[in-house]
Parts: sequence; C-alpha cells; structure tokens
Amino acid sequence: MNIPKGLNDLLPGEVLKRRLLENRISKIFTQWSYQEIITPTFEFYELLAKGAGSIMKKEMIKFFDREGNIIAFRPEMTTSIARVASTKMQLEPKPSRLYYIGNVFRYDDKVGNQREFCQAGVELIGVNSKEADAEVIALAVESLKNSGLRKFFIDIGHINLFNGIMQSIKVEEKRKQEIREAILNKNFVLLEKILSFSDIKDEEKEFILKMPTLRGKGEVLDEVEKIINNKLSASALKEIKEVYNLLRDYGLEEYILIDLGIIRDFDYYTGIIFEGYTDYLGFPVCGGGRYDNLCSKFGENIPSTGFAIGLERLIMTLEREDINSLNLERPEQYLLYYQNNEDNFKKALVAAKDLRKKGLIVELEIGKRKFAEVLKYARSKGIKYILIVDDNRLNKIKRVEVVSEKEEIINYE
Amino acid sequence: MNIPKGLNDLLPGEVLKRRLLENRISKIFTQWSYQEIITPTFEFYELLAKGAGSIMKKEMIKFFDREGNIIAFRPEMTTSIARVASTKMQLEPKPSRLYYIGNVFRYDDKVGNQREFCQAGVELIGVNSKEADAEVIALAVESLKNSGLRKFFIDIGHINLFNGIMQSIKVEEKRKQEIREAILNKNFVLLEKILSFSDIKDEEKEFILKMPTLRGKGEVLDEVEKIINNKLSASALKEIKEVYNLLRDYGLEEYILIDLGIIRDFDYYTGIIFEGYTDYLGFPVCGGGRYDNLCSKFGENIPSTGFAIGLERLIMTLEREDINSLNLERPEQYLLYYQNNEDNFKKALVAAKDLRKKGLIVELEIGKRKFAEVLKYARSKGIKYILIVDDNRLNKIKRVEVVSEKEEIINYE
Repeated sequence: MNIPKGLNDLLPGEVLKRRLLENRISKIFTQWSYQEIITPTFEFYELLAKGAGSIMKKEMIKFFDREGNIIAFRPEMTTSIARVASTKMQLEPKPSRLYYIGNVFRYDDKVGNQREFCQAGVELIGVNSKEADAEVIALAVESLKNSGLRKFFIDIGHINLFNGIMQSIKVEEKRKQEIREAILNKNFVLLEKILSFSDIKDEEKEFILKMPTLRGKGEVLDEVEKIINNKLSASALKEIKEVYNLLRDYGLEEYILIDLGIIRDFDYYTGIIFEGYTDYLGFPVCGGGRYDNLCSKFGENIPSTGFAIGLERLIMTLEREDINSLNLERPEQYLLYYQNNEDNFKKALVAAKDLRKKGLIVELEIGKRKFAEVLKYARSKGIKYILIVDDNRLNKIKRVEVVSEKEEIINYE
Repeated sequence: MNIPKGLNDLLPGEVLKRRLLENRISKIFTQWSYQEIITPTFEFYELLAKGAGSIMKKEMIKFFDREGNIIAFRPEMTTSIARVASTKMQLEPKPSRLYYIGNVFRYDDKVGNQREFCQAGVELIGVNSKEADAEVIALAVESLKNSGLRKFFIDIGHINLFNGIMQSIKVEEKRKQEIREAILNKNFVLLEKILSFSDIKDEEKEFILKMPTLRGKGEVLDEVEKIINNKLSASALKEIKEVYNLLRDYGLEEYILIDLGIIRDFDYYTGIIFEGYTDYLGFPVCGGGRYDNLCSKFGENIPSTGFAIGLERLIMTLEREDINSLNLERPEQYLLYYQNNEDNFKKALVAAKDLRKKGLIVELEIGKRKFAEVLKYARSKGIKYILIVDDNRLNKIKRVEVVSEKEEIINYE
C-alpha cells in the first residue's frame, strides 16, 4: 500500500530537522517584526490563478468541490496573502509585515516530482521604496545565514529588464511567450532555435542570448548599460543599482550578485526580483520580488514585496554543505521500569511526573516485559537511562546507564 | 473575492494563540517521549477509507488527480500513521510513540461547517495492555491541563459495550446501522422512532435508550453490570474498570467519567474509547481509543491506541472559560527611525542588528515618513518605543516611549 506520486512521509528524525529549520527561520522573521499568518490549504482556482504565470497555471492541482466550484490547492502563498491584505487587513496601518510557514502544492515535473512541499516566506505590504526592496533581500540573506547555510548568493534582477527588451522587439505575442518560457526553463538550445526562426535584429538576438549569462558584481551593470537601448530596461537597471547600494550599506555585498537572467514564473511581479543559489543545488533555494499590482486584483492598490524559501531544498543544501548542520543535540531520554505491582506502578508514576516536570523525556514501561528485554529495547532506541522502581526504596531509585549497564542509586526528587 | 465555504484565514493575533497552544501541547507530548511525524495532506481514497466509518466516508473531500487516481484529503491522522507504522517503521522496536499536529479536512455539516481544521494527537503503537490505554488517556488529561483548560472530563467507554448489545438483538444489519448513526448523532428522537419500529424486546429497547445517559463515576459500572446479559459487553465493562483503576493510580480520578453512550464514527476502534468534554462546548474537544486491527490492513498486526485534540475547538473552549487564557505577553517592539541620509541609514542598520541580537523585535522605517506620521503609526500598532538615529550621536540613540512621548538618550550597544 503506497502513497500518491510526489508526496512524502517525514519520519521523526526528519521532522526534528524540519522543525529546527523552521524555528531558526521564524525566529529571524519575528525579530524583524514580521507576524505569522495562516491561510487555507485550498481556495477558488479563479482567485489563485490571478497570481500564477502560464507554467504555474498548468501545475496547479485542481478539483471540483461538492458545490461544483473549481478549487485549487495553493501553489504558493503570496496570492492568498495579497487577498487577505486587501480584504480582512485593508484597514491595518501600513506597512504590514507578514510571514508564513506552510505547505504548497503543484504538479511539478521539474524538480524531483514533488507535489507537496513547504515554504517559509515574508510579505512586506504597503511600501514602494528601495528600502523596502532592500529589507526583504537583506532578510532573505539573514534567514539563510541563520538557517546554517554558509555559502550562497542572492541573485538580483528586475522584471522590466526582460519586459523592456520584449516590448522593443517586433515579434508576435505567442513567440514572446515561447522565448520567456525557454529562458524560464533554462532551455537555451530551444531559445536559440526560437530566436533563429524569429524576425528579430541580430544584435537583439545576441543580447537575449547573452542576458541569462550576465551575472556578477557591480561591473555587470556597467556592461549592460552599454547594450541596453530601451527606457524600461534602463530604468530597471537604475533600480537594481539603488537596491544594490542599499544592500552594501547593510554590509551584505558578499552575498549579492546581479543576475540579468532572472525572470520567474509569476504574472504578479512588477519590479526587483531575486533568487537564492548555492553550489549544491541546480535550482533556487529561495525567490521573490516586488508585486505592486497583485493586491489591486482584490480591490486595494497596495505596493508590496516578499520572498519564499523552499524548506525541502534548503534542508538538502544544508546537508550537502555539512551533513551535521541540522543535527540537534536531543535531551536525554529515560525509561521508567517497575517490578510489577500496583504500589510500584504508583511510585513509577510519581517519579515520571517529577522527572518530566524537570523537562526530561520519560517513557513508562507499559508492556510488562522482563528487564533484559527492556534493556535491549532501550539500547536500540538510544535511551540513555533506565530507572528501576521497586518496593524497597522510598524516593530512591536505581538508575542503569543503558550502554555501560552501570548501576547507581539516585534520589529522584 | 472570497474563500470557499468552511475555510478560514488566521490573522496574526489568532496565529499567536494557535502556536502558543501547539507549543503547550507538543511540549507535553515530547516529555512523555512521543516523537513527531508528518504525513501527506492527501492520499489514495481507498487507503484512507480503510479507517473511516460510514459517516466519515461521506464527509471525505475527494478528487481525481492528473493520473486518474481517486485521491482524498486526510479526514484524520490515525489511518495514515498506521500505514507508516506498518510499512516504513515496521522494524522499529515497539512501542512506537508518535505524535502529530496538522490539518485535516472534511465536508463537516455538523459543527460550524468547518472543512479544514487542526488536530494534535498521539499514537501509542505496538502494545495491547491496560497500562497503554491508561497512558494515552492520562496524556490526554495532561495535555488539556497544560493547554490551560481548567474544567473538563474525559469520558471513557468501550466499543464492545454497544457491539455486544447489537450482536445480541435480532434485527437486520441495516437497522443496526441506523441505530448506530442515531446514537452517534445524538438524535434520540430518531433513535426512539427506529426502535419502536424494530422487532426488539422491550427490555433491550429500554437499555439502548438508557445507555447514552449512563455517565458518572464508578457507580455507573455497578448499575450497568446488573443490566448487561451478553459476554462481549461484560468483558468490555471489565476492561473499563481496569483502566479506570489505573487512572486512579495516576491520581486523575477527578477528570475521568465512565460514559456508556460513546460510540465514535471510526471503523477501526476495537476496545477502550474516550472523548473529552467541557461545560462550554456541545461536542468533544478530543477523542480516541484502541484500534488493534487497523495496522493489519497495511500488512502488520500491531495493536495500538491514541487520541486527537481538535485545536479550534480547544481554543474556543479555553476562551469561553477564560478570555485571557491564550493571551501571551509579547516581547517589546521597537521602531527604528532615522533622519534621512545614508550615514544615518547605516547607523540605523547597526542598531537594528544589535537590538535583534538581544532578541528584541525591531522594525526599520522604510517609508521615509515624517516623525509625526511614524509616531501615529507606532501608536496604532502597539509599538512601545521609537528609536531615533541622527548625525550628532555616536552609539547613542534617542528613545521615545510611544504612549507618553517621553524622550531619553540611551546607549544601544
């Protein structure tokens, strides 16, 4: 008996890692004054589609509910939070700083076929300033650093770099969409083929092919400035430069790259966009950007920006960087064993209560097993001590260290 | 634009309460040596149906996936965990003590029409002993106590009390199912009607009608013992008595009631069953019991018991009992304001970093607003202090208490 494709069971060891990572990240979000919000696991398809790009729409998991509505699992969180910000939280003083940790769902044939995965992210709602863009990027850096990740880059781009170029070339809309998807999927062979069949000037072709390779520090900006010949792209470049300078003020220069190949498959982006990369993963570990028009689809015109971290991807990266980076030192475990009579059972219960009050992890023997059996069990479970209650002692207890079988009488109070 | 029926957005204030409650409960689960497990949000319908009763099957939210499989949202967690225990964890030394906190999904027309709600629960897998039954009931009591709940009862019954009676009366299966559902839905008018049309002895009718009202301390057992005339029910009664006595050893007598009206709508129960009730809610806040045959449906014969707490129901109850019971004292919030130039921006960033390192919640002004505006904003958000960075001071900062507008120069390092 199995589970559907793309789903996972997380056994206790894996859950510990997940929770440790969630705690590290949500601690930083909280200190930066972001507050957690929870939205439903599924919503009306029509609503969620407002935030989805062409690929994402195909990847959404849809179904009909009992009333005949088309429902979709949330494929990401930003659209739902924009809905809440524009309706239930519209009167909140701005900026609203919100964060989330929750599962999202897609038919994703790209990466490991995952259909359910966990994202942790923030939305900074109500401010359109370079300082706001810089804040969320700086927060992405701090979150990844605090998660334990050592080597990574946040690549910064701008949605209008590409849009400006697409507007300036004269090909039909369908072809533009093909170019977009080829870049999104990093399918450069296909990209070259599409361009060769398109009626585009040679210098434009060259630039479109070169753009995804332009990645580096400030010098990239100078290089592109020379090539760009449309206003939209030029103003995008100016914005990137401003945000880059603010991030230098943050002292985060070493983590930032300028990357003109970033597009991202969401219709809602309107400005600065960014993605986090490490040496250990061929796809981004986080991504985000400015979306000034999404909230207006829900009735309120609120400029916003944010990002999401993929927790499964981050765990994979962390462990490739250092296999122990999510190993937590667990508190000591005790097993309470008693010679089987009601008096000893009661004494064992009292001891368990006292020890748990001290914060210890205590399990009670409930199988009426022989001591030798319990010792074997404790060993296989990594339990450190067995405590033995018997008739003869009052408030005293025999403690057996499981590995060495060394015995000691201790006072358990 | 709205969300589908039965779903909820949790705004930051509500999320804080939810997380506080989750922490209180998971802390107790952990100290009792239960380890967290996470299973997928949806699974094959056929698999989840193995654990569902007749009502539950109707309430499951189903859909076809892209491959044409019938998929269902998990309506509860026990079936999924039994699947994992019987497959991926079958070689683990027993008992396995597992816990979960996660959302489950139903078309639930009974209580507030909730379609997505959160359950926290445990499964004690691999032991069939009265001590195991007593442990999970005692843990349910401790979890509710530690959640902040003051007045509640865990009602204990046994699946075979009712089964024994049903086996001993001679009516067709369909009629028995109707009787069962009427008791489950606490529809006693309907129950009386069904019974009056059925060919059942008067004394049996009387007992079936009386059973749901038999609730109390040990004296209930004596009362029922006199009426019961079938072996299955008699042995169920004996088990209840044994577990009741163990719970007295735990010192939890004041929280325990014997309740012969408990049935529960899961096919998987085989022994002791229980539900938690408070004065403030007409339906149980938690429920559980022994399920010794569920794992065998996934290939392993592992006796088990467990329970689930409904977190939305518990929050409702807690707040009816004491409106402040989930009010957390939040750490102080700071807003960093700076006279707008790059030097001050940098100084503000350093101050923010230092203060956050100390564990404080700090937000940075990113909207280039006037001070009067920021003061108004801070007031409406409940921010306690505004810190003002300006050119004149080194490592010193002006602190304005938002409510009183009292100013003070402090050293922020």
